Amino acid sequence: MTITSDLNRAITDLRAQVCELHAHLTQYELVIWTAGNVSARVPGRDLMVIKPSGADYATMTADDMVVCDLHGNLVDGELNPSSDTAAHAYVYRHMPEVGGVVHTHSTYATAWAARGEPIPCVLTMIADEFGGDIPVGPFALIGDDSIGRGIVEVLRESRSPAVLMRNHGPFTIGRTARDAVKAAVMVEDVARTVHIARQLGVPPQLDAADVAALFERYQNVYGQSGPHAETSEEIHR
Amino acid sequence: MTITSDLNRAITDLRAQVCELHAHLTQYELVIWTAGNVSARVPGRDLMVIKPSGADYATMTADDMVVCDLHGNLVDGELNPSSDTAAHAYVYRHMPEVGGVVHTHSTYATAWAARGEPIPCVLTMIADEFGGDIPVGPFALIGDDSIGRGIVEVLRESRSPAVLMRNHGPFTIGRTARDAVKAAVMVEDVARTVHIARQLGVPPQLDAADVAALFERYQNVYGQSGPHAETSEEIHR
Amino acid sequence: MTITSDLNRAITDLRAQVCELHAHLTQYELVIWTAGNVSARVPGRDLMVIKPSGADYATMTADDMVVCDLHGNLVDGELNPSSDTAAHAYVYRHMPEVGGVVHTHSTYATAWAARGEPIPCVLTMIADEFGGDIPVGPFALIGDDSIGRGIVEVLRESRSPAVLMRNHGPFTIGRTARDAVKAAVMVEDVARTVHIARQLGVPPQLDAADVAALFERYQNVYGQSGPHAETSEEIHR
Amino acid sequence: MTITSDLNRAITDLRAQVCELHAHLTQYELVIWTAGNVSARVPGRDLMVIKPSGADYATMTADDMVVCDLHGNLVDGELNPSSDTAAHAYVYRHMPEVGGVVHTHSTYATAWAARGEPIPCVLTMIADEFGGDIPVGPFALIGDDSIGRGIVEVLRESRSPAVLMRNHGPFTIGRTARDAVKAAVMVEDVARTVHIARQLGVPPQLDAADVAALFERYQNVYGQSGPHAETSEEIHR
Repeated sequence: MTITSDLNRAITDLRAQVCELHAHLTQYELVIWTAGNVSARVPGRDLMVIKPSGADYATMTADDMVVCDLHGNLVDGELNPSSDTAAHAYVYRHMPEVGGVVHTHSTYATAWAARGEPIPCVLTMIADEFGGDIPVGPFALIGDDSIGRGIVEVLRESRSPAVLMRNHGPFTIGRTARDAVKAAVMVEDVARTVHIARQLGVPPQLDAADVAALFERYQNVYGQSGPHAETSEEIHR
Repeated sequence: MTITSDLNRAITDLRAQVCELHAHLTQYELVIWTAGNVSARVPGRDLMVIKPSGADYATMTADDMVVCDLHGNLVDGELNPSSDTAAHAYVYRHMPEVGGVVHTHSTYATAWAARGEPIPCVLTMIADEFGGDIPVGPFALIGDDSIGRGIVEVLRESRSPAVLMRNHGPFTIGRTARDAVKAAVMVEDVARTVHIARQLGVPPQLDAADVAALFERYQNVYGQSGPHAETSEEIHR
Repeated sequence: MTITSDLNRAITDLRAQVCELHAHLTQYELVIWTAGNVSARVPGRDLMVIKPSGADYATMTADDMVVCDLHGNLVDGELNPSSDTAAHAYVYRHMPEVGGVVHTHSTYATAWAARGEPIPCVLTMIADEFGGDIPVGPFALIGDDSIGRGIVEVLRESRSPAVLMRNHGPFTIGRTARDAVKAAVMVEDVARTVHIARQLGVPPQLDAADVAALFERYQNVYGQSGPHAETSEEIHR
Repeated sequence: MTITSDLNRAITDLRAQVCELHAHLTQYELVIWTAGNVSARVPGRDLMVIKPSGADYATMTADDMVVCDLHGNLVDGELNPSSDTAAHAYVYRHMPEVGGVVHTHSTYATAWAARGEPIPCVLTMIADEFGGDIPVGPFALIGDDSIGRGIVEVLRESRSPAVLMRNHGPFTIGRTARDAVKAAVMVEDVARTVHIARQLGVPPQLDAADVAALFERYQNVYGQSGPHAETSEEIHR
């Protein structure tokens, strides 16, 4: 019973976190209407919390967030889970280090995805956050494991927390849902900046050694105390 | 008399809905100044509710919305109807399944319209919502049925709820006014994303079979219960 | 004495109007920091009300607006007038039908101005509001009558209320300050839309006869009662 | 003791100013997430006030701002200083006339930086604020004095308060932190406008004599009383 009430409390907290994190998607204009979704793994459980399908950003509440198992079956909640639930679930099943997943159709990242072209590592900010080029994943139809499989195949082989799914849009992962949201914000920002740079020329790639040094430093030194994700939490209020 | 008071209530409700729906046009920056308009059919009547001409988005109220017959004649209200009323009315007269019409000059959709170029179906989101390329309609002068006729000729032959009227801008339709507003939001979003993708290359078209599968699924599975439009209403509050 | 108190009242009203109209410049992102300015002629007087130099949009008040004569000399107010006052004054001296002038460095209109290229009339909205191509004015240094002279020479020969001053930015005029602000909003909107259309092709020009018909109709029919400017005022609250 | 309490008061005031100035970075969308930073020199002391590393713009407070010496060592405050502190400190050590430094990854300025291309002086606004082309600085890794050295080498030889650091982003300086923020806002604005102008042609450069005249006038006449920086403060409230 103690376990159950602890679990309930953890899920209640995650519902609030996941609901609130969607505000970054609208703030940075990564989503329109009801498109886009954030999920979080329930730590130590084969469960995830995710946005319901077709939910309106302006009015959805923490209680609307639904709980699913890691095959995408509804476990708790009154609404249908996001139509992208199978993809999120597949990632959690196959990447145990991942605690959060985000999907958007943000404009510039989706434009690179439409052409099937990786975003080249031409900015220190890309080296910092993505550790190299931001990779492209395969085209996949919604409705089975194809999207999830494509995400995992690409991200397992990459330092990048973001993958540009062909003709579709970006998926991002993180140790926490907040980290995955940060990656979603940053992939759009660098997708836009590099697009604009490329319109009038070809910016030079960074050297691999510089990329490695920048990535290492950013992941370990930036912020308030060691691994960045914990850090930025510390100065939230 | 019962009929009259029911009708009055329905019209009062529609005036509030139509007025409120314009907030999406400003939120997504689809309109400037007083340009753009939303209308709704009065169900079961040869009547429509539409924005008045030259009304200011920040200050207009539900009571300002005017009621017209389906030839665009003013039936109730103190202000002149939108200068696009004839086009809306023509659509309602000739497409009985349509419950809402929206017109904007949103930037990217209007840019495709200026070139007279359809938006190619290169994104899953275009397949989902538009079921294929987003078509172009003829150039037509305002002031008679030309615009309405152009809209109807194109949309009757298309799965798309949006048409790009040449040198003018997009018109969208829907089962409800809310659906037509959603289509107006999405046509601008995909117009922008595909424009940006095209600036640095040519994104590949989706296969027709994939487009059909995505369209079918989105129209029937997305959201909370069957046909999408009803659904998204359900989780509004 | 009656005349003086009437004049005082008129000036107090105009200070409030001019101050408030600047909110449209920030709302539509036509200006940054303290750049940009709106002025209004004091009806029946050789006087104008204009923004002070270097004023902060977020904090400036109606009382900060200054009154100048039509040679740009300060008549009433505690702050220095806008550094563009001489240009506004020149327009009022030479175009008695003008009641308002606006200057911005809005991005897309200024980009056309930087290339010295008129915005071609490829949209019904350009025909409606500008009656043809939006013309370019000469390069002129600030500090004497050169800018004002350039504006007047171009706009006297044009139906357009907007001129793109080379390597500088747009100036717009109107029967009222509100009309000039509307023209400033619309010139940026069409500058952006046509720029984007042109990035992927060359949109066809509208026929001169169609342009004339659209301009005529918009200036006389749009809105609530005859000439558009009076009209849109009527449904402000 | 008097000295100490004066110093405390000065630092308390600067903490509030520096914290508040960051609001311009978010207002003008020059930064995302926790990226970007503003600092101010403590007048007459070898000290600076700067944003902490990884701080959230929405929730950070004046008390979070940290005090460092001009080698970047923490002197007062509970959080780690910005990871760009060494660069700011280097500028203050080597440019005694500088009272404020700002760093962002603003989109268009960073795009020019990615290509390593100066922004050409093709607008009166560039002549006014930057006095010529906006220069490019070397590529440099974070973690030692390389970035600061690159900034100083370039800005010492230029009238421009902004430098575009290769593959990284803009740094700006000013007599005060507010002036440096203004330069950060303006460099992004002109970077965007010139980018857009260049997409459809090559805007002509201004003559050097015109640039000098515009720069001279703007620095000395614009605003309320002589040197512009003092001025714009005067009409803040």
